[in-house]
Amino acid sequence: MQDYSVADLLQGRRAVDSPVTVEGWVRTRRDSKAGMSFLAVSDGSCFAAIQCIAPSELPNYATEVLHAGSGCAVRVSGRLVASPGKGQRFEVLADRVEVLGWVEDPESYPVQPKPHTFEYLRSVAHLRPRTNTFAAVTRVRNCLAQAIHRFLQARGFCWIHTPIITTSDCEGAGEMFRVSTLDLANLPRRADGTVDFAADFFGREAFLTVSGQLNVEAYCLAMSRVYTFGPTFRAENSNTSRHLAEFWMVEPEIAFADLAADASLAEDLLRAIFAAVLDERADDMAFFNDRIAPGCIARLENIVSRPFARLDYTEAIGVLERSGKAFTFPVSWGLDLQSEHERYLAEEYVGGPVVVMNYPKAIKSFYMRLNDDERTVAAMDVLAPGIGEIVGGSQREERLAVLDARMEASGLDREAYGWYRDLRRYGSVPHAGFGLGFERTVSYVTGIANVRDVIPFPRTPGSASF
Amino acid sequence: MQDYSVADLLQGRRAVDSPVTVEGWVRTRRDSKAGMSFLAVSDGSCFAAIQCIAPSELPNYATEVLHAGSGCAVRVSGRLVASPGKGQRFEVLADRVEVLGWVEDPESYPVQPKPHTFEYLRSVAHLRPRTNTFAAVTRVRNCLAQAIHRFLQARGFCWIHTPIITTSDCEGAGEMFRVSTLDLANLPRRADGTVDFAADFFGREAFLTVSGQLNVEAYCLAMSRVYTFGPTFRAENSNTSRHLAEFWMVEPEIAFADLAADASLAEDLLRAIFAAVLDERADDMAFFNDRIAPGCIARLENIVSRPFARLDYTEAIGVLERSGKAFTFPVSWGLDLQSEHERYLAEEYVGGPVVVMNYPKAIKSFYMRLNDDERTVAAMDVLAPGIGEIVGGSQREERLAVLDARMEASGLDREAYGWYRDLRRYGSVPHAGFGLGFERTVSYVTGIANVRDVIPFPRTPGSASF
Repeated sequence: MQDYSVADLLQGRRAVDSPVTVEGWVRTRRDSKAGMSFLAVSDGSCFAAIQCIAPSELPNYATEVLHAGSGCAVRVSGRLVASPGKGQRFEVLADRVEVLGWVEDPESYPVQPKPHTFEYLRSVAHLRPRTNTFAAVTRVRNCLAQAIHRFLQARGFCWIHTPIITTSDCEGAGEMFRVSTLDLANLPRRADGTVDFAADFFGREAFLTVSGQLNVEAYCLAMSRVYTFGPTFRAENSNTSRHLAEFWMVEPEIAFADLAADASLAEDLLRAIFAAVLDERADDMAFFNDRIAPGCIARLENIVSRPFARLDYTEAIGVLERSGKAFTFPVSWGLDLQSEHERYLAEEYVGGPVVVMNYPKAIKSFYMRLNDDERTVAAMDVLAPGIGEIVGGSQREERLAVLDARMEASGLDREAYGWYRDLRRYGSVPHAGFGLGFERTVSYVTGIANVRDVIPFPRTPGSASF
Repeated sequence: MQDYSVADLLQGRRAVDSPVTVEGWVRTRRDSKAGMSFLAVSDGSCFAAIQCIAPSELPNYATEVLHAGSGCAVRVSGRLVASPGKGQRFEVLADRVEVLGWVEDPESYPVQPKPHTFEYLRSVAHLRPRTNTFAAVTRVRNCLAQAIHRFLQARGFCWIHTPIITTSDCEGAGEMFRVSTLDLANLPRRADGTVDFAADFFGREAFLTVSGQLNVEAYCLAMSRVYTFGPTFRAENSNTSRHLAEFWMVEPEIAFADLAADASLAEDLLRAIFAAVLDERADDMAFFNDRIAPGCIARLENIVSRPFARLDYTEAIGVLERSGKAFTFPVSWGLDLQSEHERYLAEEYVGGPVVVMNYPKAIKSFYMRLNDDERTVAAMDVLAPGIGEIVGGSQREERLAVLDARMEASGLDREAYGWYRDLRRYGSVPHAGFGLGFERTVSYVTGIANVRDVIPFPRTPGSASF
């Protein structure tokens, strides 16, 4: 393992004429009639491969170099020189090329250096990080994730690891996966024949979390500024291009804060992480812009460059009603906004992101703060051009009596939420938060529409690792 | 929500005499006979509360301030002044005190400002972040987590979110939790009476991951430097003080690297994150050193200040045999080291951390690289004083034929690991990695022995949120 990467070399962090060693995988090899080979070697550290020139004088030129094709792992030692060719500033004049790992049967290597469909690549997910596209997705994911941490840490937020296995369902909404160690072939049963979960690992029924929000509120009402960033699960819609059964979510939660502060935090976070990816992953973004989603850079630049609009839900309904557009879904006060409505508001009405606030209480969760009109709650969605909703959040109901009434109306068991009610009994304050789906954000940034193509391992039946 | 926190005020980031507003929770209130009250207000941003002096002239002094006890949420506006008292540099002279959230029935408030046992606090886990100890644990966790990201990112590593729900068992070892959406009251069955998992959510049996290592190897062999940092699960030993059913793990994986490079990376990472916590959370560490685990600061300083020793397993057995110590467990070449052996090596023989390398293959996992002696594998454990093993890692077997032989000897199904074998068929290179249990690390740093007391929400039956 070297102290420097291909990215370091291409960015000029080593002096020209230095002896260097490059370790990576051959993307392509071109053999010149002049008696040398050009190996494009990638180590994943940046979009570009570095060009390594192997002269025919190398002792293993004919026996090895001329057989080192795409996917072979090599260690190239030589001298770093300024490149006369276009497209790269530096290249390596090799005085030694070792092939560390061959490709067994190159003809059948599953990720040939040619275009593959995303669908095909899902079936070889363990090799897809070797393609330009998926290595770029991986770096962009990493950049966004770190930008999220940096933004929140700089503002004094604490990262909280909320429980993955839980017995509470955040919204009484999402379908949940059961977690169990019971022997299904021999289920323990009570006298009445029902399954006896007292014999299960935790002594009761347990599930995978759909959101860390309720839990993280307990930390918010002690530490003021907290966030979750971890996996969440929904046992539904796994086969659409916009939903995953398992996805990462960021959920900041702030105390002494109202809905307006929540919207501002969401806006600042989105602008900061989009600015980071434009700045730090310009190489990968140029690739997505050129080859995957023309315009994706301009779309982010537009978001970064100016404030988000804000619109009350009630105003938004008026805008949609007056739009003259023939929507597929009905528009009427009390109905939720559909994707087509959200995109109209962001793309045509505003021409940029818009925060829609104060939705009818009947279409929102029990924990959202009831507004004084008693018809709406302090909920907000950030809608962005090209995607619609990208953030959903709310001010939380901090008044115990109002929360209890909302829980009763929602048919929720007060006992099960005893600890959540406690937070309203002891030093309760206005607080608010939101959720940002991480894969959805990566999909938006890269312009790759199907979220299964931006997670490290898709759950394609029969596919690698799953 | 203010732009500055209590930590900002106490660290002098606002000028003396500035008007300031403090929002937080009352830790304690003391009423002076001179006609004023001293409110210690914490917002979770640092260990210390800030002293706010409320004069009796405030209009709500008698009606509210004199009733604002521990746990009440307040907003205090006033002027920042240098504090004449000891223990703080600054305090706030209040000209307004608002009680935003009262404590219902203060007598029964579950987290009174007095010592509570850790066991009791597990039963009120939703309120325990309001105690000095657990707020400090939360900040230390956050500091360590960010130090891990910073260390790895600075070295060009990519964070990879490996699958949580998986169908593969990393080591054929850990007991796993089943993940399912089948209706247990009405299980689908095949003709022979066995459960029909084809009807389950993923069309096959699925479990919670015990490690992301095998998955992350696929990314390592494309991106060179990668790591996981996410939750892992073991359905065993949940009721001991050293094991959790759900815990976070950091698993770096490096390509073009051998066992020595792996050990160096683990050493550098541990020293960097311990240095970070000593530097950035000196306030919380002083508390742990004074009140929880005397000597815990010196223990970390000792680790940060000098290189780790390295010892072959075979040498370590010799050292133990010659030690003259009466160990409970036998010492003999071929047996695994027990905690008492590990601690003897680190605490008495070396007097600091020691990396033990090259263990007998029979006691280690199939994926660890077979050494030339064919009796040992390239495995390493980092042993630290006061805990024993804190990191476990290995160079991975990159040779397909050797891997196949090891899998066969371990009774593993070659088909199920087809994708993992592929990584050895296409551009395979020496690579290595290790696992660092995050809760175990937090437990070590804070000196809090029971890992259930360093996770955000313990799974105590009947406890909050679980």
